[in-house]
Amino acid sequence: MLRYWTAGESHGKTLLALVDGFPAGLEIDTDGIDVELRRRQGGYGRGGRQKIETDRVEVLSGSWQNKTLGSPIALQVINQDYKIERLQDLERPRPGHGDLTGAIKFLGPIRAILERASARETAVRVAAGALAKQLLETFDISVIGYVVELGGIRIEPQKATLTEQRKLRDTSEIYSLNPDQDAKIKQLIDDTGEAGDTLGGIVETRIEGLPFGIGTHAQWDQKLDGKIAQAVMAVQAIKGVEIGLGFEAARRPGSKVHDPIVYDETQAKSRNLGYTRPTNNAGGLEAGMTNGQALVVRAAKKPISTLRQPLESVNLETKKTHTAQYERSDVCAVSACSVIIENVVAFEVACAFCEKFGNDNITEMQARFELFMKLARER
Amino acid sequence: MLRYWTAGESHGKTLLALVDGFPAGLEIDTDGIDVELRRRQGGYGRGGRQKIETDRVEVLSGSWQNKTLGSPIALQVINQDYKIERLQDLERPRPGHGDLTGAIKFLGPIRAILERASARETAVRVAAGALAKQLLETFDISVIGYVVELGGIRIEPQKATLTEQRKLRDTSEIYSLNPDQDAKIKQLIDDTGEAGDTLGGIVETRIEGLPFGIGTHAQWDQKLDGKIAQAVMAVQAIKGVEIGLGFEAARRPGSKVHDPIVYDETQAKSRNLGYTRPTNNAGGLEAGMTNGQALVVRAAKKPISTLRQPLESVNLETKKTHTAQYERSDVCAVSACSVIIENVVAFEVACAFCEKFGNDNITEMQARFELFMKLARER
Amino acid sequence: MLRYWTAGESHGKTLLALVDGFPAGLEIDTDGIDVELRRRQGGYGRGGRQKIETDRVEVLSGSWQNKTLGSPIALQVINQDYKIERLQDLERPRPGHGDLTGAIKFLGPIRAILERASARETAVRVAAGALAKQLLETFDISVIGYVVELGGIRIEPQKATLTEQRKLRDTSEIYSLNPDQDAKIKQLIDDTGEAGDTLGGIVETRIEGLPFGIGTHAQWDQKLDGKIAQAVMAVQAIKGVEIGLGFEAARRPGSKVHDPIVYDETQAKSRNLGYTRPTNNAGGLEAGMTNGQALVVRAAKKPISTLRQPLESVNLETKKTHTAQYERSDVCAVSACSVIIENVVAFEVACAFCEKFGNDNITEMQARFELFMKLARER
Amino acid sequence: MLRYWTAGESHGKTLLALVDGFPAGLEIDTDGIDVELRRRQGGYGRGGRQKIETDRVEVLSGSWQNKTLGSPIALQVINQDYKIERLQDLERPRPGHGDLTGAIKFLGPIRAILERASARETAVRVAAGALAKQLLETFDISVIGYVVELGGIRIEPQKATLTEQRKLRDTSEIYSLNPDQDAKIKQLIDDTGEAGDTLGGIVETRIEGLPFGIGTHAQWDQKLDGKIAQAVMAVQAIKGVEIGLGFEAARRPGSKVHDPIVYDETQAKSRNLGYTRPTNNAGGLEAGMTNGQALVVRAAKKPISTLRQPLESVNLETKKTHTAQYERSDVCAVSACSVIIENVVAFEVACAFCEKFGNDNITEMQARFELFMKLARER
Repeated sequence: MLRYWTAGESHGKTLLALVDGFPAGLEIDTDGIDVELRRRQGGYGRGGRQKIETDRVEVLSGSWQNKTLGSPIALQVINQDYKIERLQDLERPRPGHGDLTGAIKFLGPIRAILERASARETAVRVAAGALAKQLLETFDISVIGYVVELGGIRIEPQKATLTEQRKLRDTSEIYSLNPDQDAKIKQLIDDTGEAGDTLGGIVETRIEGLPFGIGTHAQWDQKLDGKIAQAVMAVQAIKGVEIGLGFEAARRPGSKVHDPIVYDETQAKSRNLGYTRPTNNAGGLEAGMTNGQALVVRAAKKPISTLRQPLESVNLETKKTHTAQYERSDVCAVSACSVIIENVVAFEVACAFCEKFGNDNITEMQARFELFMKLARER
Repeated sequence: MLRYWTAGESHGKTLLALVDGFPAGLEIDTDGIDVELRRRQGGYGRGGRQKIETDRVEVLSGSWQNKTLGSPIALQVINQDYKIERLQDLERPRPGHGDLTGAIKFLGPIRAILERASARETAVRVAAGALAKQLLETFDISVIGYVVELGGIRIEPQKATLTEQRKLRDTSEIYSLNPDQDAKIKQLIDDTGEAGDTLGGIVETRIEGLPFGIGTHAQWDQKLDGKIAQAVMAVQAIKGVEIGLGFEAARRPGSKVHDPIVYDETQAKSRNLGYTRPTNNAGGLEAGMTNGQALVVRAAKKPISTLRQPLESVNLETKKTHTAQYERSDVCAVSACSVIIENVVAFEVACAFCEKFGNDNITEMQARFELFMKLARER
Repeated sequence: MLRYWTAGESHGKTLLALVDGFPAGLEIDTDGIDVELRRRQGGYGRGGRQKIETDRVEVLSGSWQNKTLGSPIALQVINQDYKIERLQDLERPRPGHGDLTGAIKFLGPIRAILERASARETAVRVAAGALAKQLLETFDISVIGYVVELGGIRIEPQKATLTEQRKLRDTSEIYSLNPDQDAKIKQLIDDTGEAGDTLGGIVETRIEGLPFGIGTHAQWDQKLDGKIAQAVMAVQAIKGVEIGLGFEAARRPGSKVHDPIVYDETQAKSRNLGYTRPTNNAGGLEAGMTNGQALVVRAAKKPISTLRQPLESVNLETKKTHTAQYERSDVCAVSACSVIIENVVAFEVACAFCEKFGNDNITEMQARFELFMKLARER
Repeated sequence: MLRYWTAGESHGKTLLALVDGFPAGLEIDTDGIDVELRRRQGGYGRGGRQKIETDRVEVLSGSWQNKTLGSPIALQVINQDYKIERLQDLERPRPGHGDLTGAIKFLGPIRAILERASARETAVRVAAGALAKQLLETFDISVIGYVVELGGIRIEPQKATLTEQRKLRDTSEIYSLNPDQDAKIKQLIDDTGEAGDTLGGIVETRIEGLPFGIGTHAQWDQKLDGKIAQAVMAVQAIKGVEIGLGFEAARRPGSKVHDPIVYDETQAKSRNLGYTRPTNNAGGLEAGMTNGQALVVRAAKKPISTLRQPLESVNLETKKTHTAQYERSDVCAVSACSVIIENVVAFEVACAFCEKFGNDNITEMQARFELFMKLARER
């Protein structure tokens, strides 16, 4: 069973992800993980902290001669901005954050909550996901994440291969698949920042190359769509998750939603076994299992909760009205969010992939993958 | 730890939910559960099977003298339409279902998949959720589910108290909070059915009376928003989940999203401890915890996958093109879906509630609830 | 992931095991399960209830045309002695049972505890285990359980093949591998019963045919020895668990404990790959993984807690001293215990086996098993 | 839910325990943890490595102003002897270790297995347990671990209070409760070491001050005896676990095993609520729950697997017979084992304690503890 948890506070010593059940024999590309970490820190609209930190991953365990051992992999990202012990508590909870509710639940300081509830934690969720992507890539499964809407402006992806789309995205300061629209979006971010306000947006993740049958229909808590939804919704600031058409599927008649099944013998050796679909409205998941099509997930990120023009709040001691406290923050982190969602989705898919193909070692997994493709073609 | 799993096939002998960790000392109202089961079978647009079945729950274990024992509660709903052993396998997988992908994953018959992947399973997810609601009601926590959109038509809820809204909903054949619109919706369903097509929609669940601090921010897999998203997305035919504003939150600036915190001393004894919020865009959840406001969840249900005018498919043996097989089905089950989502959300909230207040017995839970409210007011 | 839970009270309607994640394509032999259920009810020294009940399993879900579907399998054993609703509460808790502690923990009646804490629940743990054994047998993995000590009398197994040992055991009324000693043991049981007392004993389970590498060393909660110990210790009345030499291993020097590794080319095609061990003091488990040798587990069962000559207790209302209440019981259930432990151990091994070889379907599992043996020989 | 996992290799950079769900508001005494770490490294019979390492814990996360935050606590013990990258693979697997079986399972090097399977990992299991003990101590629950048998020599504990016993143990180089016997045991260890052999033994853990009802009887995988057995058996080199009388319970008649219940009004305010037991053969656990008596667990540790006079083994490449490889090791680590078992048992008890009393924060837990004691007395 592949699984992971994280530890660490926003201004604590370090952030950690403990990845358990990762297969043996994979060469870890730490530079590849660092690329994702740096992408998470970038995107237009970020503020001061991202200049302080240059996140780098350190593999603390689970590796020997740069190959995974099959034992737990501890991934560390050290906080350059470690200063928790010098920080004070807050008096006025910030709307949108867990400040108020956490202080009451735990009967303690707001600081105790915000340090852990902070999206800083996603650095190591990204690290874990980036590692999982390296596993998926071994099986020619490719993952891409990008922004499709920001501050209410829809950014239509340019149609292209996934490789070309990666290039488009990497030239876009917004991490969209349509860099031509960057200027318009950047202007919106600048204007919003000047007004002391913040922006949210919608990000999309697509995974190509998945075989049939990752995930299961058999028990509700094992379905892949449910697991992805959990992982995504549990990312800070996410308020909505969609698979495939998502909410739009609720608005069309069935004949315009379900993807016909067409057999194309020329593709019989490919991952879809020849069962092509003229559309992919299901987003690659039917009955909690992958269906040979690209997996498509979207997430809605609310605007950053910390406003330079703070919202109304209350001093918890005096109960007097007061604007919320301000802790340094960004105007927009939707681009970063596209990186986070891409990686957390990849991790869940890798878990279900290991559930199907085992997680002892890469050699055996690959032999089993081929075996399954053979058995599947013969069915 | 409160948890549950289900068993049972669509045309098997029986459906079962095994609810483990349910507190002792609650009087089970089986009639109340049956009301939910019958609501799940109703709503305008259902077809033949719902007339065959009149689901009733049977409590097979975990109860004595009509009170829960603290031991596992097995809930059974017998299939009147038990005939699996007389049924044949399918040859042409139905788009939108797990037929194709499951047959390949399990290297076996389509029948093996569809019987379990069928939404018939939700009968016992509803039963488990209805039981969980009875636990929540002991703490004056109220749950309501209803339809807010069907086939693309938005049905604006009438503003009212939750009790009044329940009455509205129960007079609506659509299970909306605006029965005046029933006629229009019914016409759409009739027209669609005549065309051999199907419809989806959007349902909403609201839970009132929750205290602060159900759920936690501390580890990603323990956040309540994530758990709700998993439970909802793992319901058959769901393709999207939203909390509070959901996707709309991604489109507004932060100042129009985050809910200001206002202290109102006159409400200090109520569940929000006096911390009122002029808006509830967060849908009652901040940082994975309840914040004293109503919890609001929405789900997008795709149209029923089985069309009387079937979509294109393939005969798995011959690989020849052919329309998909047709198994008896409905035109629209969005109303039923509102019942399902209401109950699966209620179960997740009850789990997190037990995580906070314990699950040994009602007496102790109630004393702890009062204790927490007292400590919270004193914080 | 293969897993199971149970539900049901001693005098409730029914007992249930919900087995989740069982592979598709196995022909369930319900008669074979019933044999185990009847064996659990037998053995010399049982009292009245076992004559009332003749346990039979019913498969409520997860099967079609007598083959498993890959969906959850609900196994039911109906209580012929269903009468919980007519039963009264107890006033004087019985030492050795959970009566006192459960009544306090749950702040309720003793009846609420004893009905679930009763060893009657093991009927469905046996049913689940018997199903798991059928899965293991598909891979030529054989399981046997027997009594090795009763009331302090050691019963040395006769050396023989596992098949011969099964015959020996089935001719022994004690379920030992040395029926010649039955008379002596039976006399002890009779004498003890007449004195109003009860007896315990030690049982052993052995599993042959396991390949290398079931279980893992990598995380403490995933080690097979730990999982077996949990499953066994969680059986009613078990107070000790040993693997291989067990406590005796603590008393010998290392040179007399660890099993030398000897390569025998003639066995290279067998499950041990030629790596034979002159001794099997490890009981088939090193570092939480199977090592190609027979897996050997022992459990210590305390005597039945309900004595016809009851021990001293207290009336919970009056706090007055009084002998404990007596509910019909047996003199000795060590033979039954050998059946229970055999089956619960088999289930855990099957879980770890599925973790290694997958749990989608038998066809793929078998192909993977062969693949692994091939890769292992080539390593 | 309180839980933990570990990461790290024997000669890797670092060892980590990630403790999730630990309550907020506890002042962590890192010196107290270090005391346990140093005790784990001590005891008569240890070899070279223990002189290289002086383990110290570092709290990497989950703490602010020296108090726990309610967020995950990462505990680090750095390996002074970090050199994994300079180490070679082994050719000849060492009997008793996971070398052979792991190399086959993972189809890779022996080094990949032994580094993680090594008992070095227990350093952080001890750290996690020591933290859990600090939580238990807040509730006046005391834990002690000691050696009761070594190399076949039984060391009878001197009767004394737990505090006095701690002093006795800390004066014993063997960590027994009878330092008078140290000389004899040390002689045995010296003699064995000179012969190139190793020794095992039996350790006992006792926990005093537990209330009724920690753990549950209701589902097999939630019983506290099962959870303790898993945690203990999953410790490296453990081959047996006993609770209370353990295997001896299997040898006595019921009348000499079960602990009578006697009411003593003068103790009504103590944790046993006045329900005293003249004996404690159950070891504090009946039906998977604590019963107000001291919890008593014993574990059998096999001798260290690495012998200076190595056992017979095989070169995996050549298949030629050869003595097993020797990696630096100790003669006897039974004293250390008493520390490990003490701490892993404490962690499991703390988990079940949090399951009963919640794990949000110490303040609320303490108020609930008192509330439960009051309700329990009134039952």
